[in-house]
Amino acid sequence: MTVKIEPAAGASCPCCLPRRGFMRGLAGLGAGLGAAAAAASSISAQAEPARHTGLVIDCHGHYTTEPAAMLAWRKRQVDAVNDPAQSPSPSDVKVSDDEVRASVSDRQLKLQSERGISLALFSPRAGGMGHHIGNARTSLDWSIVSNDMIHRVASLMPKNFVGVCQLPQTPGVSPRNCTAELERCVKELGFVGCNVNPDPSGGYWTDPPLSDRFWYPLWEKMVELDVPGMVHVSASANRNFHATGAHYINGDTSAFMQFVTSDLFKDFPTLRLIIPHGGGAVPYHWGRYRGLAQDMKRPPLSALMGNVFFDTCVYHQPGIDLLLKVVPSDNVLFASEMVGAVNGIDPETGHAYDDTKRYVEAAALSDADRAKVFAGNALKVYPRLPDKLRAAGLVH
Amino acid sequence: MTVKIEPAAGASCPCCLPRRGFMRGLAGLGAGLGAAAAAASSISAQAEPARHTGLVIDCHGHYTTEPAAMLAWRKRQVDAVNDPAQSPSPSDVKVSDDEVRASVSDRQLKLQSERGISLALFSPRAGGMGHHIGNARTSLDWSIVSNDMIHRVASLMPKNFVGVCQLPQTPGVSPRNCTAELERCVKELGFVGCNVNPDPSGGYWTDPPLSDRFWYPLWEKMVELDVPGMVHVSASANRNFHATGAHYINGDTSAFMQFVTSDLFKDFPTLRLIIPHGGGAVPYHWGRYRGLAQDMKRPPLSALMGNVFFDTCVYHQPGIDLLLKVVPSDNVLFASEMVGAVNGIDPETGHAYDDTKRYVEAAALSDADRAKVFAGNALKVYPRLPDKLRAAGLVH
Repeated sequence: MTVKIEPAAGASCPCCLPRRGFMRGLAGLGAGLGAAAAAASSISAQAEPARHTGLVIDCHGHYTTEPAAMLAWRKRQVDAVNDPAQSPSPSDVKVSDDEVRASVSDRQLKLQSERGISLALFSPRAGGMGHHIGNARTSLDWSIVSNDMIHRVASLMPKNFVGVCQLPQTPGVSPRNCTAELERCVKELGFVGCNVNPDPSGGYWTDPPLSDRFWYPLWEKMVELDVPGMVHVSASANRNFHATGAHYINGDTSAFMQFVTSDLFKDFPTLRLIIPHGGGAVPYHWGRYRGLAQDMKRPPLSALMGNVFFDTCVYHQPGIDLLLKVVPSDNVLFASEMVGAVNGIDPETGHAYDDTKRYVEAAALSDADRAKVFAGNALKVYPRLPDKLRAAGLVH
Repeated sequence: MTVKIEPAAGASCPCCLPRRGFMRGLAGLGAGLGAAAAAASSISAQAEPARHTGLVIDCHGHYTTEPAAMLAWRKRQVDAVNDPAQSPSPSDVKVSDDEVRASVSDRQLKLQSERGISLALFSPRAGGMGHHIGNARTSLDWSIVSNDMIHRVASLMPKNFVGVCQLPQTPGVSPRNCTAELERCVKELGFVGCNVNPDPSGGYWTDPPLSDRFWYPLWEKMVELDVPGMVHVSASANRNFHATGAHYINGDTSAFMQFVTSDLFKDFPTLRLIIPHGGGAVPYHWGRYRGLAQDMKRPPLSALMGNVFFDTCVYHQPGIDLLLKVVPSDNVLFASEMVGAVNGIDPETGHAYDDTKRYVEAAALSDADRAKVFAGNALKVYPRLPDKLRAAGLVH
């Protein structure tokens, strides 16, 4: 597989790269995809780091600015959860193309342009998946509505968004139930990945761990389709867990430990799972995890690094520095979860908390490693992505 | 309150300090207790840091090497959980003083001496509390047995151990039920703090969050007795959560977010809670928590710093460096959870993963701040501790 960036004018659009950014992006992509780029590997951590103008793939974006008609549909569905005859049909959602464009123009598109993010892997709002609400039919209908809307966003703005799907999970129901919708999204809608909720119960953790054979039908389908999954919980129905402040992070941490203690990737050597939010607590406690694996006579963490990846949704410089210090640079994928969990401006920096591109730019990485984090790793972890970028004219 | 260290010979015992360690410990304690110590505040991060020979209080030690008779008692109790008539009485535990001494001599005492840790705040094995097993009577009897055994350890070796109690919590039962045992431990057994399990259900999180009025009778008693609590879950009965790799860390993270989103410390301005394991995921995601508080128009995290403290049970240098970089040095208490979650030798360093003293020694802290982390902060957070140290001859 070879990928070449299309050079043009302008810094914030990946098809409009100034010469320096073009070369840097190319070198990084080359490294990410196996070509030689050792010459670009000088460490470049500076007080005022250069903005990275190469290809930047945000692997973690949710549609948090849905059109009102879509949310109204969901409300009707939830209101009818005990009276299925009143439940709306997925085809009842009526949203115009202009409404779809408008829903992302003021926020995601504007911020992508301002920050120099080329495009986002875009999935339905995580907190909105609500797998604990209703039954399997509720979940399937809502997943169809949500995924179809993502498809419209990605189809209307293919240079900015590539689809990642929500799965119609339901507590206690086999994930086999999700494989048809996953296949539809990948084969018919051109999606490149999915979100997998490790706790469809919404904070009560009543289903088996991800390593249990319960999940195997889903893993088999993901391997067959060659799409990775992001392990991402949905809303918390448990008062103990604030959604974005506790449940999300706990889900990440729990999933990693399920991988450490199981042989999941012996059974699925090509399965790839991304742990978002910088891997939850894991990089901060990297020594604990190395030590626990050692005490339990499990393989070292390095044995997981062909299958487990971390995103960069960590909203301060010391956190990103730690992440990139302890996790191999081949295993970190750029992401900001924009527009997502944290929306404000950090008074300590004057920049948005979730402008994670700045932190990665300021981290002590070689240019080659930085380009891997910004794009090369995503192109490897999501094998269907390069063709999407070519089709959109973002790379050759 | 003034505390002065007793100087003598030898490096590993706090009453046997060489001159340099004595002066350094004194300066640090002075700072921790409000005296001027600005002169000692030069940054001293070095490639090979000096070992800290001042007073070192490990605020997080569990009795993980219990005498066999104690564990046999628990087994009999659990076996009889459905037949209370067969349940043993707390007074049935028969362990000699020699057995108590022997239970800690090969591990805790040896490691304290080798590492230069003066003493540990010592509580029953966290994973052993098992609040989800049986009923309130089960929990009370087991807490009495466990706390009495801690009292024997601390009474026999008062220079090395100070008691912290387990509470007789039970899912669905008011924490008011714990206040008598807490009062007994503090007033009769001389304990200086308690462990509070935020999830007595063992991984299903079925009780209200710590900010709920459900917990207020316990907070009232802790304030009355002026003892802090360490927020520490017990074993996980949920397969999704590995105990020390996920459940512990999730409990820490969840508790912090409960504090961020509530007015608990407006109602209890003098309540002090320690979040162990370096605060779970919190310091790594410090920007997320600052941003979430800001988005929610909650007070800044600094508003919690009179009430919430973090320990140093983070088992690698980058994690400790991050912790001490983002959390104010007044809010970090030295701890190693020794002998605890991780027992091996880190092949990358050649030292034990849980020898956290080395990481704190190597961190970029002033000597004054380091002495606060090693001892001064604990003496403030546990107001009953200075008298214990005086009585043991560890300080004047």
